[in-house]
Amino acid sequence: MNDLRPEFSSDIDVQLVKASAKDTDVVFAARVSTIGEASLKTAEDSGEGLIRYLMRDRHGSPFEHNSMTFFLKAPIFVFRELMRHRIASYNEESARYRELRPLFYVPDERRKIVQVGKPGAYTFVDGDPEQKKLVQEEYRKACTASYESYRTMLGAGVAREVARGVLPVTIFSTAYMTINARSLMNLLSLRRHVEGSAYPSFPQREIEMLAEGLEEIWATLMPQTHRAFVDNGRVAP
Amino acid sequence: MNDLRPEFSSDIDVQLVKASAKDTDVVFAARVSTIGEASLKTAEDSGEGLIRYLMRDRHGSPFEHNSMTFFLKAPIFVFRELMRHRIASYNEESARYRELRPLFYVPDERRKIVQVGKPGAYTFVDGDPEQKKLVQEEYRKACTASYESYRTMLGAGVAREVARGVLPVTIFSTAYMTINARSLMNLLSLRRHVEGSAYPSFPQREIEMLAEGLEEIWATLMPQTHRAFVDNGRVAP
Amino acid sequence: MNDLRPEFSSDIDVQLVKASAKDTDVVFAARVSTIGEASLKTAEDSGEGLIRYLMRDRHGSPFEHNSMTFFLKAPIFVFRELMRHRIASYNEESARYRELRPLFYVPDERRKIVQVGKPGAYTFVDGDPEQKKLVQEEYRKACTASYESYRTMLGAGVAREVARGVLPVTIFSTAYMTINARSLMNLLSLRRHVEGSAYPSFPQREIEMLAEGLEEIWATLMPQTHRAFVDNGRVAP
Amino acid sequence: MNDLRPEFSSDIDVQLVKASAKDTDVVFAARVSTIGEASLKTAEDSGEGLIRYLMRDRHGSPFEHNSMTFFLKAPIFVFRELMRHRIASYNEESARYRELRPLFYVPDERRKIVQVGKPGAYTFVDGDPEQKKLVQEEYRKACTASYESYRTMLGAGVAREVARGVLPVTIFSTAYMTINARSLMNLLSLRRHVEGSAYPSFPQREIEMLAEGLEEIWATLMPQTHRAFVDNGRVAP
Repeated sequence: MNDLRPEFSSDIDVQLVKASAKDTDVVFAARVSTIGEASLKTAEDSGEGLIRYLMRDRHGSPFEHNSMTFFLKAPIFVFRELMRHRIASYNEESARYRELRPLFYVPDERRKIVQVGKPGAYTFVDGDPEQKKLVQEEYRKACTASYESYRTMLGAGVAREVARGVLPVTIFSTAYMTINARSLMNLLSLRRHVEGSAYPSFPQREIEMLAEGLEEIWATLMPQTHRAFVDNGRVAP
Repeated sequence: MNDLRPEFSSDIDVQLVKASAKDTDVVFAARVSTIGEASLKTAEDSGEGLIRYLMRDRHGSPFEHNSMTFFLKAPIFVFRELMRHRIASYNEESARYRELRPLFYVPDERRKIVQVGKPGAYTFVDGDPEQKKLVQEEYRKACTASYESYRTMLGAGVAREVARGVLPVTIFSTAYMTINARSLMNLLSLRRHVEGSAYPSFPQREIEMLAEGLEEIWATLMPQTHRAFVDNGRVAP
Repeated sequence: MNDLRPEFSSDIDVQLVKASAKDTDVVFAARVSTIGEASLKTAEDSGEGLIRYLMRDRHGSPFEHNSMTFFLKAPIFVFRELMRHRIASYNEESARYRELRPLFYVPDERRKIVQVGKPGAYTFVDGDPEQKKLVQEEYRKACTASYESYRTMLGAGVAREVARGVLPVTIFSTAYMTINARSLMNLLSLRRHVEGSAYPSFPQREIEMLAEGLEEIWATLMPQTHRAFVDNGRVAP
Repeated sequence: MNDLRPEFSSDIDVQLVKASAKDTDVVFAARVSTIGEASLKTAEDSGEGLIRYLMRDRHGSPFEHNSMTFFLKAPIFVFRELMRHRIASYNEESARYRELRPLFYVPDERRKIVQVGKPGAYTFVDGDPEQKKLVQEEYRKACTASYESYRTMLGAGVAREVARGVLPVTIFSTAYMTINARSLMNLLSLRRHVEGSAYPSFPQREIEMLAEGLEEIWATLMPQTHRAFVDNGRVAP
């Protein structure tokens, strides 16, 4: 019955599905406020100065007239954190409607797995080889056992939504997320730890990996806006 | 000083600035839930059946992965109602940053201007010719006088944001609005009065004119979704 | 090391932490629209007629001027669905900041565990005794094994946020949720299956149990509003 | 017919209708994350240290589990700006359902009415006596004329929603607003100009007066949270 073998991966995947998001979208929207009707017609200069001004003085609304749809592949515990961001649209794979694939996230070599310091000021350090080995072994053992229970229940005719209860939060899921640049900047300000930020954040490494993927794509779509965000201390307007 | 002459118009204008909004966006997003990864690759059938199912069973989230930006021209009293819709993005012309143009909305011949019935169950009927004439005259008189006061204050060096206090709510303003199809359906369900709707609404005629403009454009972008919305009694999922 | 023994429960718990939510809140808010200043002073009649009118004609905003804070105890897979409701405030127990207790949700005797029909039209039926026994056994086996892996990793000094990856989605979590009546009605319309509703929903049983707990408390706080919601086909305004 | 005489006022009024908002609400909500179930029971210390930590490290969600309902009286141009804040609930007096009272806002002696500098860096200075006199005169003249047109149309049987088009944006309106502390902090950070803020804002004076009224009340309800907000450079978490 259990013909599907569990697989393990340390990759978190972000792909752009589609975007309607350019720096000029910010400029045009801002100019409605100051020029009115004419804003539809001309924008001779590049607008980068205007973007930097809007970012610095926290005129946030012009950064909302754009839209990016991403396809995301990440473990459930990452989606749990992601979906706390309420200004975005989500459609996630449903364990009620489909049988989940046995693909599980496991930390790779680079993932620091030991926490030091006290609450509110944790830092992470590399574990020793025994700790690393233990994590690999326990993840594989626990995920494999959970998945076997899942398949056993499915095989006996138990509903998917019931059987899935035993699956671990490290199992991969997939989702569409649609978000605008203003909301994305808020997400990035909270979900990446970057030295020199005006307000440092301490995200879990795995959602940070997702955030890095999002930021990389966004930076190519709206390079001037991205630069202004970085230069402004990574504070969302 | 008052070289700008007040003008009057009965038109409310809706233009599409840009859109990333197709029926297939709904289908792809919905399929993430049921197919997972494969949803990126194939969608052989048109998906209209799926759209109708989602609409009927109130699976609303797949209708959010799209985006439309509109340029709107309408009197302030319409924008006042419009901006009560919180799931959208707005940038409106600012009377703090620019001097407003003397263009005023005035009801035209077809606008029913007499209210009958009691609160909660008003209907509107055509006014008699004297009433119609009176509205035209009073609008022109009051708007012209207000605008003269505005220009007099500006001419004397008074700040725009102070002088604008005397301008009437029927003065035209312009705005960008970005919205997705799910939120737009909610707006349309409340801001148009259509016989046969599951939940009839009684919007003011002028915001209904705006809603008609929005719906006409949206219907060309996402015709299957629009048909499903109409056939579902104009209830937003 | 593994001194904590896994426990299992079939109860989903909803407690009211505090509320500022009465039927008169709806009435007062609605009267601002129609009476203005005087609304602060008098409301002689009970207002039930007004509440029913607002509900029926989809005047939703008066139902927002109230607030309820709940303490919730439910498995993670329920919180995953719950937090898709974006118009509410959440604080959930963090597996990064604390070690999770070994308390796991397991379906009880009454939970129908076999799914029949096709996607979009599932119904659930009682499983046979073997199926029921299997679910109990597999849940206990898988949860116990996962929890042992969790504790083993913690005991070896692995960070909580890393070790928790192996825990199943049926583990209990706790959260505060603050929500207003309008948003709660939307939640209830989607997360309870009640015959005779204008728009039937097909929620997973466990989030329905949570919704039942919420509705029971809300109905005692705002009985007139609750009755109007029920009589209106359980459609949120 | 025009028996109601226009009145003028320079006061913007904020009253607390009701509140469920204490500093301990923040503490209890935060402790769910770190202590879980026990958070319902004890909080021996005052929690001020925790509040300051949450504010500084931008843990915003614990500041949402509270609710304040305000009664507001302000000119329409202030409500226009206020209602751009989308994370709040509003019910405003309706000019469709009731006849508006002839009460108009007019700047008082202290209101600086002359703008100097360029866009994005305006400052305001006192006008000279002639300018001040002019503003008083033009406001009174324009508002009186507009109101007469309004009453003339009403007297002739024209619908309220049509007649109100001529009323100026400086006419007073009233509204209920319900908001939580997190959203209020965002509002205050944008709508008050306070030297020493991390991100200075340049609001119009009249909405700043409203914001001052809101802040004064909020500071008495949640004094520790308010202090932490101020000490944190008036940046919303």
